[in-house]
Amino acid sequence: MNRKIIRYILGTVCRAEGLLLLLPCVAALYFGETEGFYYLITSGIALLLSLILARKKPDNAVFFLKEGCIATALSWIMLSVLGCLPFVMTGEIPYFHDALFETISGFTTTGSSILSDVEALSRTSLLWRSFTHWIGGMGVLVFVLAVVPLSGGSNMNLMRAESPGPSVGKLVPKLTDTAKILYVIYFVMTIVEIILLAAGGMPFFDNLCLTLGTAGTGGFAVLNTGLLTYTPYQQWIITIFMILFGVNFNFFYFLLIRRFKKAFMMSEVRTYFIVIVISSIIIALNTYNTATGVSDTIRNSFLTVGSIITTTGYASVDFNLWPTLSKVILVFLMFCGACAGSTGGGIKVSRLRILFKSVVREVDKYYHPRSVKKIKEDGETLDEETVRSVGVYMCTFIALFAISLFIVSFEGRSFETSFTSVAACINNIGPGLGDVGPTGNFGDFSLASKIILMIDMLAGRLELYPLILLLNPSIYTDAAGEVRANIRKKRRLRKGDL
Amino acid sequence: MNRKIIRYILGTVCRAEGLLLLLPCVAALYFGETEGFYYLITSGIALLLSLILARKKPDNAVFFLKEGCIATALSWIMLSVLGCLPFVMTGEIPYFHDALFETISGFTTTGSSILSDVEALSRTSLLWRSFTHWIGGMGVLVFVLAVVPLSGGSNMNLMRAESPGPSVGKLVPKLTDTAKILYVIYFVMTIVEIILLAAGGMPFFDNLCLTLGTAGTGGFAVLNTGLLTYTPYQQWIITIFMILFGVNFNFFYFLLIRRFKKAFMMSEVRTYFIVIVISSIIIALNTYNTATGVSDTIRNSFLTVGSIITTTGYASVDFNLWPTLSKVILVFLMFCGACAGSTGGGIKVSRLRILFKSVVREVDKYYHPRSVKKIKEDGETLDEETVRSVGVYMCTFIALFAISLFIVSFEGRSFETSFTSVAACINNIGPGLGDVGPTGNFGDFSLASKIILMIDMLAGRLELYPLILLLNPSIYTDAAGEVRANIRKKRRLRKGDL
Repeated sequence: MNRKIIRYILGTVCRAEGLLLLLPCVAALYFGETEGFYYLITSGIALLLSLILARKKPDNAVFFLKEGCIATALSWIMLSVLGCLPFVMTGEIPYFHDALFETISGFTTTGSSILSDVEALSRTSLLWRSFTHWIGGMGVLVFVLAVVPLSGGSNMNLMRAESPGPSVGKLVPKLTDTAKILYVIYFVMTIVEIILLAAGGMPFFDNLCLTLGTAGTGGFAVLNTGLLTYTPYQQWIITIFMILFGVNFNFFYFLLIRRFKKAFMMSEVRTYFIVIVISSIIIALNTYNTATGVSDTIRNSFLTVGSIITTTGYASVDFNLWPTLSKVILVFLMFCGACAGSTGGGIKVSRLRILFKSVVREVDKYYHPRSVKKIKEDGETLDEETVRSVGVYMCTFIALFAISLFIVSFEGRSFETSFTSVAACINNIGPGLGDVGPTGNFGDFSLASKIILMIDMLAGRLELYPLILLLNPSIYTDAAGEVRANIRKKRRLRKGDL
Repeated sequence: MNRKIIRYILGTVCRAEGLLLLLPCVAALYFGETEGFYYLITSGIALLLSLILARKKPDNAVFFLKEGCIATALSWIMLSVLGCLPFVMTGEIPYFHDALFETISGFTTTGSSILSDVEALSRTSLLWRSFTHWIGGMGVLVFVLAVVPLSGGSNMNLMRAESPGPSVGKLVPKLTDTAKILYVIYFVMTIVEIILLAAGGMPFFDNLCLTLGTAGTGGFAVLNTGLLTYTPYQQWIITIFMILFGVNFNFFYFLLIRRFKKAFMMSEVRTYFIVIVISSIIIALNTYNTATGVSDTIRNSFLTVGSIITTTGYASVDFNLWPTLSKVILVFLMFCGACAGSTGGGIKVSRLRILFKSVVREVDKYYHPRSVKKIKEDGETLDEETVRSVGVYMCTFIALFAISLFIVSFEGRSFETSFTSVAACINNIGPGLGDVGPTGNFGDFSLASKIILMIDMLAGRLELYPLILLLNPSIYTDAAGEVRANIRKKRRLRKGDL
């Protein structure tokens, strides 16, 4: 295992976080808040750490998927540990584990909060909280790839470990360019949303935070009431942008290079939109209430469906009070998730499409036992390896879900709460139903539950395997063996020198 | 498609049911109940129908998995439609759809009831209700194979369609003999349970019905209080036999032919017992209550765990009132189910073992990308086709579950009730949680929900594909095409004759 390159990548990610932490520092200066001081300290710690870790570039820059996965998982854990320090230092979230929960929830774009009173936070901290969504949405390593290109052709293994979806495609031959294009699209769309919300008269601070949360499909709000108090125009803009950020970014790239036909033929994107429209209509019919009127019902349906399917988690209404049919649809959408290659979480529409097709094929096999049908997607034949691994992904997902549900059920909360709290974290959504509905929070969960939910959030964001790999003891025994071998080698060399 | 053989099989199944319906007739004579008359009429209808359908044995006795599946699915539907007639005729269950629900629940060994007052039924009907469990437990077509052997080597396709588990093994070279051995084991174990319960002083009628329900892992009781009023000894006997009937019957066969080592090395059976013991201990600790005492707590835990994992569904305690942790464990056991090749339902322990191993292999692939590891079970290498199909089975299962949950959620009941009512039916358990807990029933569900739950029960018992195949429209277009081709052929022949 190439431990040096892992250390180097960790160092680079540290440097990136150190620089990104300067944004809240600037904001603190602007708002005149003393909390900024702690962000500056944390930034210093991160930069110092990066100096230690990424002192010199390793000569051997080749790494495989294994190293890519380990580097990614460790990067995300390190990012979260560093990122939560300001919350603890300012005393705004006194307990370390709570602060870590909040930060992991931020970076993984979950949006589950342990805070009962969001408005008590300083503006600096609110901005950092939302900024973590934006950073985590597109991926930290993709960012590193875009800004600090690593040499060697093995970068694909980093991107594969961090990007959502069953398969990773390069838009352009060079991966660094792909990463840049993705970040440019991300950036431009963020700016457009800010402009449109500003045009609707939203205060700039709310605008900025909500947009960062929308872009990363995170869901941290700045008011205790979520989106309730914003105007219908502002809610619609956020709804539309949530849905757009849940679209496979390749779609926007194809639009950009004027390959409209290819863009609109993407079956995943089409399924995604069909699911949104149908779900919203059913929920609108199911929740229609003469008291609130037609336009409110429609807006709330679309906003909630868009919020849940893209795994953002903003709420303009307490959907915990909706009838069971609507709640069950929301639970489905929680698992469905957004498109692959977007900033959203969940199982992903493309995986479900592949799963559905393999089920149809299996049924067909009973009817035509000797047929050898290949599964196609967008006109391209999928290799059996992808189909199989999607099936196994699903099973891994269920296994992790079951274990988490088991542990969380020690809390003794209702089945609905236990089930949806795990679903909300593993799919990176934010709110669930019951005690963790839009008006609730995760604050009074036990430490054991919080730890398992943190693991779920990270596993969900990194698509299970990078994180599960960290639990594989052979990594550590192998690494320890290498270290011992190195020491022996050095000793022998020294003896030779004498 | 060989439609003639399907018709012939249906006719044979009809004859079998006609004969089996004579048991309640005899019981009615003994109890002096007039309800027996309607059972006699139904028996007559079944025998008449069998004369029409199985008039003559088709010359071409070859059939494939497709025909096997269709014949199985149609047989089970026909069995249930005929079997529910006495309930309607006696007026004990006035509505046809309710009677059908109850009978499907019986044959599929589910044990979900629409009755709120079981004790109001005549003894004849109670016996028939429990007898359907016993018939459905081992499988009707296996019975037909054992009693009325069909010629040709294609019988395996019938057995494969009806038997639970990822793969079907013949115990002895001849399938007919395998079927006979299975039924002999089944019969002997049933008799032993009756003797042991009689020794414990249980009234003979209760004894007979409960034993039939235990053997088929069904769960229809004869008292409104379930097993609550029986003595601890009687409850323990039922618990032990429920668990034994959930064991892969190959285990008993190996014991019978004195291959003890092979029997006790069956990893599925070992996992099954480990799961039962661990779950029972956790639940006992979780539900321990000084008021009821240690021995009651232990007995109730084992009985409930045995009842749920074997998908029987008997209850000696209202587990709906248990803490969430215990309820969540029960929900897991609902999906886990018993061993393959037993009379129990659910996903089956062996499938879960294969799924778990493929997940481990997938994680391992990240670490050793070039390794080609085969999955082994009991020392034998599983072919990739089996592994893949188990994965797809899981996905099909989830898809059917999701669609059913969606439809049932129109009821507007709690999430817990909606979720577990589908789980209880698709896994052939009987009771769920919430409104369908041990003290509740399915009586006041809407017709739409009842229909979808009936489909779930059948799909669960027949392991999905035979029933889903019936929903494939190409079967009917193909069949219609064949009929038209036949008519044309006959016309042409007639013209030639002229």
